[in-house]
Amino acid sequence: MNKEQILQDWLEKIKPLNQEMMQAAKDYQVSLAKPPGSLGKLEAMSIQMAGITGRIHNEINRKVILVFAADNGVQTEGVSITPRNVTMLQAVNMTHYKTGMGALAKHFGQRVHVVDMGIYDPYDCAAIQNSSLGHGTANIAREAAMTREQALTAVLTGIETVQNLVNDGCQVVGVGEVGIANTTTSAAVYCTLSGVPAAEVVGRGAGLSDDGFKRKIAIVDGAVSNLQPDPRDVVDVLAKVGGFDICGMVGAFIGAAAAGIPVVIDGFISAVAALAAVRLAPGVKDYLFPSHQSTERGYLLAMQELGLEPWLNLHMRLGEGSGCTIAIEILAAACAVTNQMATMAEGLIDESYLDEYEGKQIFDS
Amino acid sequence: MNKEQILQDWLEKIKPLNQEMMQAAKDYQVSLAKPPGSLGKLEAMSIQMAGITGRIHNEINRKVILVFAADNGVQTEGVSITPRNVTMLQAVNMTHYKTGMGALAKHFGQRVHVVDMGIYDPYDCAAIQNSSLGHGTANIAREAAMTREQALTAVLTGIETVQNLVNDGCQVVGVGEVGIANTTTSAAVYCTLSGVPAAEVVGRGAGLSDDGFKRKIAIVDGAVSNLQPDPRDVVDVLAKVGGFDICGMVGAFIGAAAAGIPVVIDGFISAVAALAAVRLAPGVKDYLFPSHQSTERGYLLAMQELGLEPWLNLHMRLGEGSGCTIAIEILAAACAVTNQMATMAEGLIDESYLDEYEGKQIFDS
Repeated sequence: MNKEQILQDWLEKIKPLNQEMMQAAKDYQVSLAKPPGSLGKLEAMSIQMAGITGRIHNEINRKVILVFAADNGVQTEGVSITPRNVTMLQAVNMTHYKTGMGALAKHFGQRVHVVDMGIYDPYDCAAIQNSSLGHGTANIAREAAMTREQALTAVLTGIETVQNLVNDGCQVVGVGEVGIANTTTSAAVYCTLSGVPAAEVVGRGAGLSDDGFKRKIAIVDGAVSNLQPDPRDVVDVLAKVGGFDICGMVGAFIGAAAAGIPVVIDGFISAVAALAAVRLAPGVKDYLFPSHQSTERGYLLAMQELGLEPWLNLHMRLGEGSGCTIAIEILAAACAVTNQMATMAEGLIDESYLDEYEGKQIFDS
Repeated sequence: MNKEQILQDWLEKIKPLNQEMMQAAKDYQVSLAKPPGSLGKLEAMSIQMAGITGRIHNEINRKVILVFAADNGVQTEGVSITPRNVTMLQAVNMTHYKTGMGALAKHFGQRVHVVDMGIYDPYDCAAIQNSSLGHGTANIAREAAMTREQALTAVLTGIETVQNLVNDGCQVVGVGEVGIANTTTSAAVYCTLSGVPAAEVVGRGAGLSDDGFKRKIAIVDGAVSNLQPDPRDVVDVLAKVGGFDICGMVGAFIGAAAAGIPVVIDGFISAVAALAAVRLAPGVKDYLFPSHQSTERGYLLAMQELGLEPWLNLHMRLGEGSGCTIAIEILAAACAVTNQMATMAEGLIDESYLDEYEGKQIFDS
């Protein structure tokens, strides 16, 4: 069976949310000892979780931050001030829980799983899953990042990695990345998918000068117009202007939806990967949860198309899946509230006053 | 010694932040294995914590949600649809960790401490600290809420309660409330302190109808113009248009600053209490941390004067200290990141690339 068909089979595995159970979860929320809707998005999270798992009561204990690491050939164009070997160094440091995301994950008792999708520099670290497709992609300023076959392989790697984690007991996955210059490639993917010019999307990544910033915009627009990726063919877009890391992330979003677990978006790159996954299979959307507002300009554009609003505004711009770490704890707390709270009756509250309740939008999403 | 003087003595105990240690904490942040400033507000939190404790490395393990419970005479004017006895019922339910905030606190391993400042209805619950000043305040639509002596007593109760908690090992306190109609009294306090008319401040509380909403605005404006609280005399404002609950909260913010521990603001009522504390002693500001964006309209106005931006946007409008529960975990995580992350050198990253770094605002606040 060819890879196009294998991918198609995965996409078809994605089930819609259990509407009956979501209605039961809504009814249960109304019965709890609080003004209806007063827990806002926590209520919406709990209801979405019921739709995902088919149960009103859920617990999230086994949490994984899944990081796709790869180098991007366009790095040689000076679109990032960070040296290339930082991809490799931080991929290794993450496995020791020593990066920003790693430290957060350790604090929260979350597992970090790093996948080498194509790191350039050599390393010696058995904790990294070796799924390398080569020493980084080709330079999108000159040629397609990779072949279509490679893009399919990378997406399938993401899917299968999540399946393996779920088989291991993982109940939620946050999707992060490390890959110098990957804000450039993900901007090119987003610009192609949306038709928005780079000037409205591109940010300064991890701290770019004015000149570097202009160069980055020109390179993104140039790659899109020269390589002519077809926006209706997501795999073509990923292959021509994407990266091995982004492809793996797209697969992770698909894999989580296919396995029926919640999946958390990090910043800009993660949001673009989620959007690409939703373009491949709209059903992925039902399994997505946002985390924090990225300072990269394209983030809110991508989230707008996904219909999601970030929960956190911490001015973070680290990537790695750092925002997912906190968001996963909020999602777990939303489930815990539902399990722990008293009902109106248990709390001895006479709920007849709710007849007067005029809250227009009880279940916020 | 009279209570005015005792309060003054507490205000004078508040120390400014340790600037030397904050500079050392900034330098340490720059040495960590990440682009400078990329952890955004987490870095700012860690630096502020260094200023508070005088140490670069901090841990937050013993966390308390401190809830002030009281009834407000203005409830009889129909400014809230919730029955009065819900103040008493939820105060009791909180001690069993069964309310929305209680469930969150239990999930996060936080202690809930409830103080009865003047609950109307009788109850039997030894877990509640009895500091009652009476069966609710007087109705501000007709007369001053309480005497100046009562307001001072209530503020001192808040201060002393935090001191006792700190003596018990508490390292951070989140300040919440339960008190039917207290969005009306806190709006009157805010309108007096700011000079902003009620129509720009008042919200729908826990779900008010259009008629109830208009009545609430008229009552707030009426109380301010009839009782003529002096905006330069915070105790006068609290006594005339405040509540026992709000007074206790003002004391909690002062007490935390005087004891040198971080203190977290919840929603609108908590923000107004924090603002009143800062008007009494500007030094309180250095110890404040925000949590979530309240849907009450006056919240952002009050936070603007405090120079604080909420970290979370979860559309919650429950009160109780519910937003503090999550924010405290973020603050604890910010401290943990600083302790756990590798430095650039430990992460083997050549930091000379940072010479090119042009990030304008490295330390976000």
